[in-house]
Amino acid sequence: MTKIAVLGTGVVGDTIGSKLIELGHQVMMGSRTTENEKAQAFLAKHNGNAKTGTFADAAAFGEIIFNCTSGGGSLDALQLAGENNLKDKILVDLANPLDFSQGMPPSLSFVNTNSLGEEIQRAFPQVKVVKTLNTLWCGLMVNPGMIHGGDHNIFVCGNDAAAKETVKDILLSFGWIDKNILDLGDITKARGTEMYLPLWLSIYGSTNNGAFNIKIVS
Amino acid sequence: MTKIAVLGTGVVGDTIGSKLIELGHQVMMGSRTTENEKAQAFLAKHNGNAKTGTFADAAAFGEIIFNCTSGGGSLDALQLAGENNLKDKILVDLANPLDFSQGMPPSLSFVNTNSLGEEIQRAFPQVKVVKTLNTLWCGLMVNPGMIHGGDHNIFVCGNDAAAKETVKDILLSFGWIDKNILDLGDITKARGTEMYLPLWLSIYGSTNNGAFNIKIVS
Repeated sequence: MTKIAVLGTGVVGDTIGSKLIELGHQVMMGSRTTENEKAQAFLAKHNGNAKTGTFADAAAFGEIIFNCTSGGGSLDALQLAGENNLKDKILVDLANPLDFSQGMPPSLSFVNTNSLGEEIQRAFPQVKVVKTLNTLWCGLMVNPGMIHGGDHNIFVCGNDAAAKETVKDILLSFGWIDKNILDLGDITKARGTEMYLPLWLSIYGSTNNGAFNIKIVS
Repeated sequence: MTKIAVLGTGVVGDTIGSKLIELGHQVMMGSRTTENEKAQAFLAKHNGNAKTGTFADAAAFGEIIFNCTSGGGSLDALQLAGENNLKDKILVDLANPLDFSQGMPPSLSFVNTNSLGEEIQRAFPQVKVVKTLNTLWCGLMVNPGMIHGGDHNIFVCGNDAAAKETVKDILLSFGWIDKNILDLGDITKARGTEMYLPLWLSIYGSTNNGAFNIKIVS
């Protein structure tokens, strides 16, 4: 079992952190301040099986870091986590660079020739960034079997092959099926998975059901 | 059977035009110049069952117009087709606004709060733009049954409900299954289908197979 930091106290961080605890990992949830109410609720819910701390505390604790902060605040949160605390570790980036400044639907802060995944990798060159799980509702991230017998696709990308293998093992432990975990290549491939978000939102808007995913058929 | 204009002489125009002829429609392929070699080859291949002309000739001929030009040239091509020739007609927009000026992979000329579909609708407010078929390889556009028993998804969007119904009927005649034709809403939903392209390219790059599509599972 692994020491894992979950940065972010929203529904994504709570969902990922709770699943990791269920799987027997040691989890510290990191937030901007130690008094964060959602982090305290997470702590209470897990009855001593969870830890909480600042972003820096959590990053120092974790051997693997999950970025579950909202995309607009991810770079700031990671700066607070601290380069030295993140160095040489695997950073699993689940965030999308949503920009709500122009109203709904959100646009993306980085597109085309850039992505949040790449921005993070550039800001922290000694961190092994693996982008994954940002293409679906968090309930399905940790419970793919909830729909279609778990037979649908998830993407991973990143520059470090060994880090991607470690993350794939975590995905398998979440219930993802090996053949459905598609390695898209290096971290530049984060562009495609982030730019899928507007289509995801359109499908959600049209079907009124967020518990869906895509399956590649050929 | 309907008089249909196919604007563009590339592989998409040839594929769509040939299928429409096979289905018994009268098709005129439009290009910048009447001497266009690919248009002449299309004409020869269809042995008198096809017509060719300028963009303006084709747009004047067609009751329905398929925009099969490359996205970077679509607005110019439609200007040549002429507002009066397009007015009040259904324009089926299959193009993606690919920008190759920064090399490969292409980026998108319009993203986030804009799309090619919207640009066309804005430039020709009296045309009924329906965006569809831009999310997959052209061989599958007209032959969805080639993979997975035809059971995968296609999107339509546009501001005119009746125009979308007409286009759905054409999709059904191509072999698309009614339950798999997802109406995303108005023409702003073109953003999502166009911004899906980088993910499409990444999947293609990873699997080395362009004859794929996505199926929404829930």
